[in-house]
Amino acid sequence: MGGIIDGCPSGITVDMDFVQQELNRRRPGQSALTTSRDEGDRVEFLSGIYQGKTTGAPIGFTVKNENQNSADYEDIKDLYRPSHADYTYQTKYGIRDPRGGGRSSARETVSRCVAGAIAKIALHQKNIGIQAFASQVGNIRLDKSYHDYDLNLTESNIVRCPDPVKAAEMEALIHKVKAEGDSVGGVVSCVIRGVPAGIGEPVFGKLHAVLGAAMLSIPAAKGFDYGDGFDAPLYTGSEHNDLFFNDNGIISARTNYSGGIQGGISNGQDIHFRVAFKAVATLLRDQLTVDRQGNETTIKAKGRHDPCVVPRAVPIVEAMAAITVLDFILITNLYRPAIN
Amino acid sequence: MGGIIDGCPSGITVDMDFVQQELNRRRPGQSALTTSRDEGDRVEFLSGIYQGKTTGAPIGFTVKNENQNSADYEDIKDLYRPSHADYTYQTKYGIRDPRGGGRSSARETVSRCVAGAIAKIALHQKNIGIQAFASQVGNIRLDKSYHDYDLNLTESNIVRCPDPVKAAEMEALIHKVKAEGDSVGGVVSCVIRGVPAGIGEPVFGKLHAVLGAAMLSIPAAKGFDYGDGFDAPLYTGSEHNDLFFNDNGIISARTNYSGGIQGGISNGQDIHFRVAFKAVATLLRDQLTVDRQGNETTIKAKGRHDPCVVPRAVPIVEAMAAITVLDFILITNLYRPAIN
Amino acid sequence: MGGIIDGCPSGITVDMDFVQQELNRRRPGQSALTTSRDEGDRVEFLSGIYQGKTTGAPIGFTVKNENQNSADYEDIKDLYRPSHADYTYQTKYGIRDPRGGGRSSARETVSRCVAGAIAKIALHQKNIGIQAFASQVGNIRLDKSYHDYDLNLTESNIVRCPDPVKAAEMEALIHKVKAEGDSVGGVVSCVIRGVPAGIGEPVFGKLHAVLGAAMLSIPAAKGFDYGDGFDAPLYTGSEHNDLFFNDNGIISARTNYSGGIQGGISNGQDIHFRVAFKAVATLLRDQLTVDRQGNETTIKAKGRHDPCVVPRAVPIVEAMAAITVLDFILITNLYRPAIN
Amino acid sequence: MGGIIDGCPSGITVDMDFVQQELNRRRPGQSALTTSRDEGDRVEFLSGIYQGKTTGAPIGFTVKNENQNSADYEDIKDLYRPSHADYTYQTKYGIRDPRGGGRSSARETVSRCVAGAIAKIALHQKNIGIQAFASQVGNIRLDKSYHDYDLNLTESNIVRCPDPVKAAEMEALIHKVKAEGDSVGGVVSCVIRGVPAGIGEPVFGKLHAVLGAAMLSIPAAKGFDYGDGFDAPLYTGSEHNDLFFNDNGIISARTNYSGGIQGGISNGQDIHFRVAFKAVATLLRDQLTVDRQGNETTIKAKGRHDPCVVPRAVPIVEAMAAITVLDFILITNLYRPAIN
Repeated sequence: MGGIIDGCPSGITVDMDFVQQELNRRRPGQSALTTSRDEGDRVEFLSGIYQGKTTGAPIGFTVKNENQNSADYEDIKDLYRPSHADYTYQTKYGIRDPRGGGRSSARETVSRCVAGAIAKIALHQKNIGIQAFASQVGNIRLDKSYHDYDLNLTESNIVRCPDPVKAAEMEALIHKVKAEGDSVGGVVSCVIRGVPAGIGEPVFGKLHAVLGAAMLSIPAAKGFDYGDGFDAPLYTGSEHNDLFFNDNGIISARTNYSGGIQGGISNGQDIHFRVAFKAVATLLRDQLTVDRQGNETTIKAKGRHDPCVVPRAVPIVEAMAAITVLDFILITNLYRPAIN
Repeated sequence: MGGIIDGCPSGITVDMDFVQQELNRRRPGQSALTTSRDEGDRVEFLSGIYQGKTTGAPIGFTVKNENQNSADYEDIKDLYRPSHADYTYQTKYGIRDPRGGGRSSARETVSRCVAGAIAKIALHQKNIGIQAFASQVGNIRLDKSYHDYDLNLTESNIVRCPDPVKAAEMEALIHKVKAEGDSVGGVVSCVIRGVPAGIGEPVFGKLHAVLGAAMLSIPAAKGFDYGDGFDAPLYTGSEHNDLFFNDNGIISARTNYSGGIQGGISNGQDIHFRVAFKAVATLLRDQLTVDRQGNETTIKAKGRHDPCVVPRAVPIVEAMAAITVLDFILITNLYRPAIN
Repeated sequence: MGGIIDGCPSGITVDMDFVQQELNRRRPGQSALTTSRDEGDRVEFLSGIYQGKTTGAPIGFTVKNENQNSADYEDIKDLYRPSHADYTYQTKYGIRDPRGGGRSSARETVSRCVAGAIAKIALHQKNIGIQAFASQVGNIRLDKSYHDYDLNLTESNIVRCPDPVKAAEMEALIHKVKAEGDSVGGVVSCVIRGVPAGIGEPVFGKLHAVLGAAMLSIPAAKGFDYGDGFDAPLYTGSEHNDLFFNDNGIISARTNYSGGIQGGISNGQDIHFRVAFKAVATLLRDQLTVDRQGNETTIKAKGRHDPCVVPRAVPIVEAMAAITVLDFILITNLYRPAIN
Repeated sequence: MGGIIDGCPSGITVDMDFVQQELNRRRPGQSALTTSRDEGDRVEFLSGIYQGKTTGAPIGFTVKNENQNSADYEDIKDLYRPSHADYTYQTKYGIRDPRGGGRSSARETVSRCVAGAIAKIALHQKNIGIQAFASQVGNIRLDKSYHDYDLNLTESNIVRCPDPVKAAEMEALIHKVKAEGDSVGGVVSCVIRGVPAGIGEPVFGKLHAVLGAAMLSIPAAKGFDYGDGFDAPLYTGSEHNDLFFNDNGIISARTNYSGGIQGGISNGQDIHFRVAFKAVATLLRDQLTVDRQGNETTIKAKGRHDPCVVPRAVPIVEAMAAITVLDFILITNLYRPAIN
């Protein structure tokens, strides 16, 4: 796995430990909850960094996957795994690389995390912070607003949920479906604090539309909403309009149903959104399917696979949010390169 | 209002009546449910069409708004309407055109409908059909899958809901909030039939991500999901994986929780998705707000305004779906221009 | 004719007289040298300007061509004019709009001049000035560097050449070819002063490559070079390297064979380049050709046509230079919108 | 050095020997004429190829530079080499990586040649062939049209000139300037045969404008023209219009001053163009310059450097031509992926 990060401003000090730590948050095998394959993800930068700082050149990198076993894929190279991309890729391209690490593998999110780590460093200099967390696993969900939780607790448990009680329930549910060779989905919520008003572009470049596309590009994502999202229809305009007031000289609003974005442009309040993820499609039990020739057969995954993507999706959602917000800040000229 | 449609293939016969009809579906004033301002939307094409056919050149057009009254905007030119884009635009650009018809006005969707009508004509030649409908208004929602409704009934009522009983309830709710000077939101669902397998691009150009961005770009949109979307977390992998089988020689699946898209690429099944809309922010009642100088005041809209965008959003969702799918088909080479 | 100018920063005061004047510089019929069709080009802005200032929204505009006579094109609608785009458009699109004003008509440069005028205003605020001039018509050419001419004399004659003696020769040559129903080409040179160091992007976004593409997009353009360009091969490295020195604390160079661009990035010196134009393809004399069916025939243009594009190309080259430089300045963050 | 090739169609058989051979044509050290540093360029593909065929996924690759000596750059890390990009990069980015292999190094053309080799393979399947050659070195130039040479002789001499007599003169000139620690420039001409009519986009995507930008992006390029280019002004319209005739049922033209492109779109005739290159800026003799602090000093390159880029530019021009033409063919739908 690897890639090229383009458009990064020059002069950013790349803290290699932080980059590696972000990569580790994504890694499977962190706990009993996720697959214990030790993918041994070590990032190596090939370009774009000189004496620890970005030069403005594209940042090339590779992340070697030392433990990958191509043989694992030999058995299934002609099978269409249900609800995977095998069939659609074969149809689109007429050829398909069955080995892991391809573009439809969850492993491609390695690159997102590397880029996201650098974007987070750049945003940190602007006092912009991003925090995602598991807000639902199966039918267990957080009932309250993110304001009512201490988001610092997120990393204190392996499901990355800031409510310890719910976290324990989620963990138990994941163990249960895992024992059944099954899988389960969930929802990741995310808050972005410190974004100045004025980020986002009208009509087809709205901040929430681009954020939505970024989130929906994550493997297994099924939905995106921001502010009061899919609950918005339950409120009348008079109930959920965010009324402006003069907060000691600063124009602000007492509520934030808008999710920090109005007309596609940030208004300076917290940006908050949700991303729905389906259950992992790979199951450790027999499933009916067909092979490339159309013969009906069954498939059963081998090895260790995640029964739930939600804990690992938390850093990926943060990474995509960081990349998206930094892009908008750069095109809105808040970041200035070294030109007089 | 007006715009330029770029990238339309040559040789498409533009049925002007159909274009005008699609524009009329979007228009306010179609019924008691939506504002009765007769905007008199008449499209005039300025380029790109010769003897009734597209030439491959950009299609320029204008849609005059004969009934617009700039005076309506004079009173509010220095006020920040709650949950509108007034504040964010002023902050971003340092200048704001308060007259209707700007980029943050719902009127910009006129252009989407013109482009969508031409895209629909092109898709129709490929036997691709798009049908959206109101699936929720306030807390009134359709409980069943789209398969269980006759979508041909959609246009038979003014809320554009294929269930006549629910439609009547929705209509009553809209009347109620309107009488209170209030507004209400809802959900538009959409089905795209006939898309061949292979449309969509991996990683950052996934079909559902681009569709999502297109839908989230519509004014008042708050969320997007596809397939089983935000309900996906409630199912285990074994419950909602779509199992392939051999359907008399054709590889197909018995279910479609995937929403016709796997790994970001169409699989030939119906593509279905939902878009959540908030209640209209403009209210015919007093709301607290501030002016540009930060003085606290109240605002109350004049004239006639939609109490619910859902009925009018139906053709807009269809238009954006048509544009998006046609774009993907063009880049996937199914449409061939007149080259030997 | 018309178009949309996207990406213009907000807050630019649009001097309508200046815009119209720039448009008039492009217009045919300014003198005996160019066709006297009075195209009556009057620009009307449809969006993006409020109370005389740009709002940051796309600037839509139309320029009506009141004197166009569609009948002029009826006779030639099935003929392929030699060295025009009739044949290639017909082959590419399978349909062709024979009326003037299409995308392959020189009239499309109207839009370039409108956008260029606004870009010039924005650049003027940054003390960036652009001056083009005719440096060659037929075999009559300026022998010296632009430093050796008073470029303020450029507009003092109808060929827009800063050397009055050469201008008279060029004018005589144009009259001669015109009398013969023939046409002649030439070269436009351009100097951009005041561009700060640091504009341009490495590898595929080099300033001179993007400038080159912009110039080559002008109808009838056949070549582009910058600095010592096609003469560079005649010099050794030791002869034409620009040696840096310390100019009272400022790093500068005594020569500028680089044309103000090194490694694709501006170095703060004058940017200078040339654009070659072929003779106008439309001739007021019989030429052999074929019609769409392949029948051999002759064609002879009617009406009044330019015998030489060079004088009118001068403002077009300036317009494209202004648009290109402003784009680079905007992406390089020298221009800051109204965000705190 | 390395990169990612995006947008390559699936199913192309990648002949590794051919790719390596193309890379070798670019390599310095092929002869006494170019620097004998053996860069040991071996391409390694990291993704996008499976069992010898492209999969449609991005093709990642690296080309290791085993002989690079970073110490060579230590001495000059604070000096601004004349007519190099050192000063502009430092000014733009505020930081500069002085080691070879950066984006302003001629070594970046390694990646162009890898991508170009694959593009050539794809074009070969469409019977499109590309041939570049040295047409000028210093003041020694080919006087005749490319029709009058046997271009198959191009690779028979180390300057890559199809005229053996001129080749010997060019070679002698390069030896002479080399002996003087100096360098010399030249012109590369290129012919593309077999491109179907209809490639290229109007207005801002004209084939010659995009080709021009591609060529001008090559290090040391100073100019581009096509067809009769900078000689066009010397001809009247009646002399250089390409007259259509009926060539046994096929519409063709007896001349090709247009260079195979009319209105920015290919007409089916040979596409031919020229690229001017300046003398290499790195000299094996003292040159005046300044360091980053503005102190005046001298610089003299060490090691072995090319005295003339022209022979090595020949395969680079071909590579960029192949990439550009393939891109246009792909967007014009002549290449069809494996979709039914």
